[in-house]
Formats: sequence, C-alpha cells, structure tokens
Amino acid sequence: MNVPDLDGTGVVSKFIDAAGVRTHYLEAGQGEPLVLVHGGGAGADAYGNWLDCIQVFAKSYRVIAPDMIGFGYTDKPSPEVYVYDQPGRNKHLADFLEAMGLSGVALVGNSMGGAASIGVAIDKPSLVGQLVLMGSAGLPIPERPSAHLLHNLHYDFTVEGMRRVVGGLTGPDFKPSDAMIQYRYELCEDSEIKAALQAINALTKTGTLNYPEDAVRQIKHPTLVVNGKEDGVSILPRAYRFLELLDNSWGYIVPHCGHWAMIERKDDFCAAVEGFLARTKA
Amino acid sequence: MNVPDLDGTGVVSKFIDAAGVRTHYLEAGQGEPLVLVHGGGAGADAYGNWLDCIQVFAKSYRVIAPDMIGFGYTDKPSPEVYVYDQPGRNKHLADFLEAMGLSGVALVGNSMGGAASIGVAIDKPSLVGQLVLMGSAGLPIPERPSAHLLHNLHYDFTVEGMRRVVGGLTGPDFKPSDAMIQYRYELCEDSEIKAALQAINALTKTGTLNYPEDAVRQIKHPTLVVNGKEDGVSILPRAYRFLELLDNSWGYIVPHCGHWAMIERKDDFCAAVEGFLARTKA
Repeated sequence: MNVPDLDGTGVVSKFIDAAGVRTHYLEAGQGEPLVLVHGGGAGADAYGNWLDCIQVFAKSYRVIAPDMIGFGYTDKPSPEVYVYDQPGRNKHLADFLEAMGLSGVALVGNSMGGAASIGVAIDKPSLVGQLVLMGSAGLPIPERPSAHLLHNLHYDFTVEGMRRVVGGLTGPDFKPSDAMIQYRYELCEDSEIKAALQAINALTKTGTLNYPEDAVRQIKHPTLVVNGKEDGVSILPRAYRFLELLDNSWGYIVPHCGHWAMIERKDDFCAAVEGFLARTKA
Repeated sequence: MNVPDLDGTGVVSKFIDAAGVRTHYLEAGQGEPLVLVHGGGAGADAYGNWLDCIQVFAKSYRVIAPDMIGFGYTDKPSPEVYVYDQPGRNKHLADFLEAMGLSGVALVGNSMGGAASIGVAIDKPSLVGQLVLMGSAGLPIPERPSAHLLHNLHYDFTVEGMRRVVGGLTGPDFKPSDAMIQYRYELCEDSEIKAALQAINALTKTGTLNYPEDAVRQIKHPTLVVNGKEDGVSILPRAYRFLELLDNSWGYIVPHCGHWAMIERKDDFCAAVEGFLARTKA
C-alpha cells in the first residue's frame, strides 16, 4: 500500500519509530507544532481526515498528523498479538510525541482521536499544551449506539457500505466525493487494516473509549470543545458534558455540521481553532 | 445628569431622535457599523456595559452603542405614561436603527439587550444582518428567578446593594472596581431612572422578556450565542435552547465568566465576535 500522491500540497509523508511502532505521519509548515489526531471510523487516516485542514494550518503552524496504530500507513499489528483498546492508542500517541521530541504541544483530536488526546493529557500531561476536542469520544453518550454509529461499527467492506459510514458521520448538507469514498473503501480492503478495524470496533462496543468522569476532570489544559449540531455520533449533550467536566474549557458549536467539522466546515473550524490557540497560548 | 468624561477614549457621545425618544448613544471608529445593546440590570447603560469593548471593536468597525429607553442618558418617560415592556424596547431599538439610517446591521445584545436584538430580528428582519446574543434573555429559564437575578430584581438603591447586583451577575473571579459600583449606584439615584427601573423590574417578573419558541425559530440571521459558564442569570441550558431553536446559530461558551463576557473576558469576547462577524458576513 502506497501513501497517496502529495504533489503540490506542500505536505510531506514521513515515518518515525514510536517505541517500536513504525508510525506514518504527514507534516507541513513551520512554527509552533500543532498535532492533528484522526478519528477511528472505517477507512480513517491522517490523509483522509486532515489533508485540506493541514494546508490551512500550515500557513501558521508546523502541522503534524500521525496515522494511529492500526490505521493508514502506520504499523497494524495482528489483533492476535496486540490489543486495540484506548489505552493502547494513548500509549502510541504519547510514544509518537516523545519520539518527535514534542512536549507542551497543541493536540487537535477528532472522535477517537479526541479520546486519544484526552488520554495523553491525563497520562502524560506535560506532553500537552492545549487541547481541541472535536466531536470527541471519551465519555459515554446517553442513547447509544446511534444509527449513525452503527453504520460504522457494522461496516460491511463494500463501497455502498462506505457511503453509509460517511453519510452517518456527516450532516445532511455534506456530499462526499467519489474519491473520498473510494479512498476509504480501498484502505479497508487492506487485510491488516481490516483485521485491526474489526478488533477496534469490537472493543469500541465494550466502551473502551470512555473515561471515568473524575479522570476527565483532572485535565486543566486550555481546551476547546468543538461539536457539530448535526453530529449523530458525538451528540451535543456529550459535548456539553465535556464543557462541564473540563474546568478550563471553551465551547464552539457549529451549525449545518456533523462529525467532521474539519472537512464539512473547514474554514470555520480552522479559524476557530487558530483563534483559540492564539488566545490561550501560555 | 451629565454624560461621563470620554476624553482620550476616542469615543463620542451623541443624541438622536428615535421616533420621539431622544436617544443617547456612544460612537467610535469607522467601517461597517456594529451596534452594541446593553442589558437591563440596575445601573446599566452603554457607557458602563460597553466602554472598554467599544475601544477594541472601534479598531475595525464603526461602533454604535445606544442607551435603551429608561436607561443612561436616553429619555426615561414616566411609567404613568409609558409601558416598559419588551415590545416597547424592541420598537425603540428598531426606531433608533431607522433614525440612524442603519439596516442589515450586526447587533450584539447582552441580556435584556439580547432580547431587544431578537425582537428587532423578528419584527423587522431587514434591519438586522448578524446577531450576537451574549447571556441573552428571550426564553424562560428552568429555575427562576435565581438568587443571582433576585439581587437585581430587588435592588435596594444602596451602594452595598449595587455590589450584590454586580456580584450576582458576574463570575467569582470578577472584582468590580469601586468606580463601576459608584457609577451604577449614582445612575440609579436619578429619580427618572429609578422610576423606570422599578417599572422594568416589575414587568420583567411577569415574563415580558420571553418570546414564544416558534417566534425565535423564525430567525434565520447568522447568530452567535455566547454564554459564560458561570452565568447564574442566563444559565447554560437556556443558551443551549437558543442553539437548538436558531437553525443558523453558532455557540461560544466561555469559562471563568458570568453574565458579562464583554467586561469579564473582554479580549476573548471581542475576538470571538470579530471572528464570527468576518466568517458569516453575507
């Protein structure tokens, strides 16, 4: 499997050893580092989730977007020898930050990537400077699993199934390109990704993404909680609960937007994040 | 009663006839007009609520901040001949905008000023371009009246009473200056303001500030709903209800902040408002 063509984007593809996990990441721009952590949907990776956003942020930041363990072009150990739970992803993200020599860094996490960002903020708080949690997992939601999430958890490895996954994640205004559907579909055809995804989804159903509320309360980093109003996966009441638990958190609620503000409302999302990062910089 | 000294602020004090109501307003800066509408607390007016904010916004906008009828240096007709209800304030604000030759204008309303901004957006939608509702009234709140609001509704016209009013409106971090307390106290010693305030508070208790939800749903203007997390008057669940009812609304939730984001978190508030106005400009 080859990393997609990045010609003309200003974005480069790199690899680093993160405590034994060969980790792929995209990088662009110069300045303060900003780490983008993708979600855990079928076919997700840094390229698919963040490519457009990276190019916006790269005007002001050194942007770094890793593929999480089991996704994209990062190692995908067999579920027979590796447990794809949230503590594992937290360790991998922390190992990646340490391998990159980053600390006190701004993390922007979407969905499962939000849960991983939270995990690092709890486990190794000095690695993190500011947090942006966008449609973040990390707390149980009142009515779950929603139909939206079920499309993802029960992905059937077909192109039509991938359309249902993306449709379930995004708001009604969003029309995914055929290229996006095809890219995510093809990623999931990789036998290692397929095995990892099935293991991840099985563990997700057991609630591995959820932290005790008291653990979330420990986080004191400046945090921006972003949520689309039409997000059927990370529903607004969960975002509001994050705002209650995180003492030092701001909220940004976006209309006409589902689970992927970084794609559905890219300019709005990037401007809100940049404003927050500038205002809360230590 | 004299308008306070504005020397060195770049802000000027002006008067205009708004359909028979001599209306005082502050003005500063050049460019697109931006209208700031103060709240209805004891001793509120444009000077006390907005002076610092005006100077920030004036770098980019032509800022206009009227005193509402019954407040500050605008006419305060006797309650024997004038009904101080919300429809009256809505008419006055619309008349003021029309007298100023403004339409399609951005309105930023705090508390009762939010209710007035909503009223104009419903009654005369073409006058309004964008809305910012900060700690806005306009919908009933589940548990009312809160202790915070009672300090205001039962203001006893003493300096200590004014400290309780301001303490009830603001978050625990906020330390009002003696000058602020004294200014608001002295305004309320004016016999016309006192009479108007008593009439306003009596009508507020009857729910005059609340709109039917279906009326709020009619508003289609881009709207930013701002709320402090520590706002004991405009509590978060009401802000969240505005976000549900207003289809085209964004939310910005601010920590360590009560009912006066424009004073308690001036720079944060002004930056969020300017970002919103730029992103949603037609």
